[in-house]
Amino acid sequence: MKGHNYIGNQQSAKGTNSFFGYDPTTNAPLTGTFYEATTSEINEAIQKAQAAFDIIKDRSGEERASFLVAIADEIMALGDSLILRARSETALPEGRLTGERGRTCNQLRLFASVLRDGSWVQAKIDPAMPDREPMPRADIRSMLRPLGPVAVFGASNFPLAFSVAGGDTASALAAGCPVVVKAHPAHPGTCELIADAIIAAAQKTNMPEGIFSMVHGVSHEVGGALVKHPAIQAVGFTGSLRGGRTLYDLAASRPEPIPVYAEMGSTNPVFILPEALVQQHETLADGLFSSVTLGVGQFCTNPGLVISEQSAQSKQLLSRLSTLISESQAGVMLTSGIQGAYEKGLTELSEQSGVATSAKSDDNKINAGAGCLLSTDAQTFLSNKDLEEEVFGPSTLHVATSDMQEMMAIAKNLHGHLTATIHGTEADLKDHSELISILEKKVGRILINGYPTGVEVNNAMVHGGPYPATTDARSTSVGTGAITRFARPVCYQNFPDYLLPDELKEHNPLGIKRLVNGKWE
Amino acid sequence: MKGHNYIGNQQSAKGTNSFFGYDPTTNAPLTGTFYEATTSEINEAIQKAQAAFDIIKDRSGEERASFLVAIADEIMALGDSLILRARSETALPEGRLTGERGRTCNQLRLFASVLRDGSWVQAKIDPAMPDREPMPRADIRSMLRPLGPVAVFGASNFPLAFSVAGGDTASALAAGCPVVVKAHPAHPGTCELIADAIIAAAQKTNMPEGIFSMVHGVSHEVGGALVKHPAIQAVGFTGSLRGGRTLYDLAASRPEPIPVYAEMGSTNPVFILPEALVQQHETLADGLFSSVTLGVGQFCTNPGLVISEQSAQSKQLLSRLSTLISESQAGVMLTSGIQGAYEKGLTELSEQSGVATSAKSDDNKINAGAGCLLSTDAQTFLSNKDLEEEVFGPSTLHVATSDMQEMMAIAKNLHGHLTATIHGTEADLKDHSELISILEKKVGRILINGYPTGVEVNNAMVHGGPYPATTDARSTSVGTGAITRFARPVCYQNFPDYLLPDELKEHNPLGIKRLVNGKWE
Repeated sequence: MKGHNYIGNQQSAKGTNSFFGYDPTTNAPLTGTFYEATTSEINEAIQKAQAAFDIIKDRSGEERASFLVAIADEIMALGDSLILRARSETALPEGRLTGERGRTCNQLRLFASVLRDGSWVQAKIDPAMPDREPMPRADIRSMLRPLGPVAVFGASNFPLAFSVAGGDTASALAAGCPVVVKAHPAHPGTCELIADAIIAAAQKTNMPEGIFSMVHGVSHEVGGALVKHPAIQAVGFTGSLRGGRTLYDLAASRPEPIPVYAEMGSTNPVFILPEALVQQHETLADGLFSSVTLGVGQFCTNPGLVISEQSAQSKQLLSRLSTLISESQAGVMLTSGIQGAYEKGLTELSEQSGVATSAKSDDNKINAGAGCLLSTDAQTFLSNKDLEEEVFGPSTLHVATSDMQEMMAIAKNLHGHLTATIHGTEADLKDHSELISILEKKVGRILINGYPTGVEVNNAMVHGGPYPATTDARSTSVGTGAITRFARPVCYQNFPDYLLPDELKEHNPLGIKRLVNGKWE
Repeated sequence: MKGHNYIGNQQSAKGTNSFFGYDPTTNAPLTGTFYEATTSEINEAIQKAQAAFDIIKDRSGEERASFLVAIADEIMALGDSLILRARSETALPEGRLTGERGRTCNQLRLFASVLRDGSWVQAKIDPAMPDREPMPRADIRSMLRPLGPVAVFGASNFPLAFSVAGGDTASALAAGCPVVVKAHPAHPGTCELIADAIIAAAQKTNMPEGIFSMVHGVSHEVGGALVKHPAIQAVGFTGSLRGGRTLYDLAASRPEPIPVYAEMGSTNPVFILPEALVQQHETLADGLFSSVTLGVGQFCTNPGLVISEQSAQSKQLLSRLSTLISESQAGVMLTSGIQGAYEKGLTELSEQSGVATSAKSDDNKINAGAGCLLSTDAQTFLSNKDLEEEVFGPSTLHVATSDMQEMMAIAKNLHGHLTATIHGTEADLKDHSELISILEKKVGRILINGYPTGVEVNNAMVHGGPYPATTDARSTSVGTGAITRFARPVCYQNFPDYLLPDELKEHNPLGIKRLVNGKWE
């Protein structure tokens, strides 16, 4: 581990502030001293990104696709060293990390296939009508073009798939935007290995220097300097509500505001309808237990809220869930900071009037994330907005309603979340379809008879939702739709064919899907 | 003229603050006393919009299309009274207003055709893979869904096409969002007539009450109350940089921030390349004169900046343009406020060091918008960012460069604009294609050998651009692309077919274009 910042292709460690990675299973520091980037290093990285943008924006999709595939290849070539370092920095199990590496590489390859297809640019052509009365119509064509340099803030809970080469970086590079990553201080060594892979891939595929940089920092100044720099044109962030809102506010107060795609907290309510509760309370308890405790509960789609009607079966569900949680072994959380925040959040929640702790698993290890079930009733929930806030970790709050009206009232009063889930039989769903109509206004993804954890990376996925789930509900941070976050439409009027981008040339040399005269061709 | 606010279908005038429309040719008040909306009237309008949203969001595209077409029909049925009132409030000539009415109605019908086609929702389907290893894949489908109630602020310079039933209202209603319009106080009577037409159309097509409301106000409080209300989910605005930025800042500082689509100032630079200057200086002078003075210069795409190399032909161009402007008759501007701001802007610009006033037309009438040509050199321009700011009216600033390097430096230093124009022969364009690459980063629309005024309403149009041209360069406020500003993707996972929106049902009952398994069908 060198602990350097990556200022384009140059490694640099001019600062005096340094820090370490830690093993969350022991709280012991790991090898490698990491140097926080100085303001001049940050500015240099952004200047290089700006220079790279002038080159990369006119490279073909095929060239950018090769770069993305090369990144995936270089990540795989890191072999076990990557998994070992990530494991030591996060306490995530090997299987999870190899799976996440696969997802990260598949994601890069998926965006490469989007670029090779080429149709993502939404090419639109309204040909000239020289004889139109009273005025001739000019030839007008438009397509999406990249925004410019993008600042990416990785997440602690996905050291690969939402970090240095994660979805934000992959989609920004795919769109044609250089990226400056703020490395996550909870896994700086993993970040360094991935940065090496990206730089190697960039050099092998002849990308301009500055297409990728990475700066370290534990202080807020590093992130703030990135977001405030006038050359940065968009921000991707995954993390806490407080962190995301801070960056959003910084970006909105710039002389020239820029978009911020912050994916933040979510409690992901699960509604259990009456007949499903009667018929499936046992399997629902098992399913909820698995989803709540998966990955020590450290997923943004963790189901932190379960709503069902008060009944004998509701009690059986809770009883079974309590037993499963009580008998489970706590996992180790990602960092001592996250573990501290989890315990604090649980304490605050359990101390709220009308909230009881129904079960908690053992916590007999360092940085234990103990599974926890809390419970309350609908009136308490409806009268206290704090109960809807995310507690990041393997806990869930059960809300017992006295009737379906209360359940609908809870749905109507929700703020924004990433997901909402409904469990119901066919009769349930027919009787209570209003619930879908309500939840559609609240979330980015509605699931029926499933669990919100496990986010597919595909075309139809929406990983987003109304505030405070994200700062921009018009987008998704997972799946191919993420690429358009980093682009804007540009219109070319009365251009000679040879000056048009290939995507808009008359004979469609790239063979992409285009809207010509109002018809998709 | 009743001067009432439209709180859903109810007319209401509970406030004590009142104002009049004025005839800009005389500054005399027109008939009708208009009542500023009170806070409770505003809140009631938004509550009705919220209730209407729950109904309209699940209506079919065909139903919303009928509503839009009915609005167009009702506007046409207003007949001459609309044109007469608009003319008396704006001093715009009859021909311009009948043309603008046509554009407004065509725009409504265009969005109706977008709804009838139905493909705008970007339906995406990734079918289930129950046998996938290691985990089965759930059925995942997504499409765009409306955001919720939208606040629309009309523009003074397009009393029909960018006002009560203008592009923002048409696109928001098309997306399925109820609209609360803040009527423009410079043409309140025109607003009232159009509001009558929209309400009549809503009732004839069985739209829920609250799908449209309109409130009057001269004070900033009315607009502020709209933007800050938690039920408002997006804002459309056309007007000044100061007004747009104020609304943007208000929206960004809400507990739950919302998108603001503010289309603001733009100077729309025109670059004249050397060979075109030699060969076409006469026709360029004529074309610039027409574009600069069209509609008394009151267009957001007015070319307020012309850049060409210092030369004999450059002098001839300026000489001819000076003569044309000096000999022209000033038109009457939209309001005395706009005329005052224009004169103030011209005075401030002409008093800047190194800027000369080369020509000005007569201003021998009330609220005269006198054509004006100012000139400076590249070094002065490059050293003073104030010279790039819009002066709203029929003026333009010529910047003489000593070489092409200076011209490129000017292009590189531009902030965001709606448009940029290049005049060049084929040889010019080949020699200086770098200019296109620079301008692509600066604007929403690049024109070659044309003039930026005259914005087509079609599929490929982009009327937008980087800040300060707009607050959201990822969108267009003109053309069919405007509809997606008021929608966000929602994902449906593992839904039984009968619960899916028609757009996502397995057998595609609407016959729309969909991305199925990565292929457009």
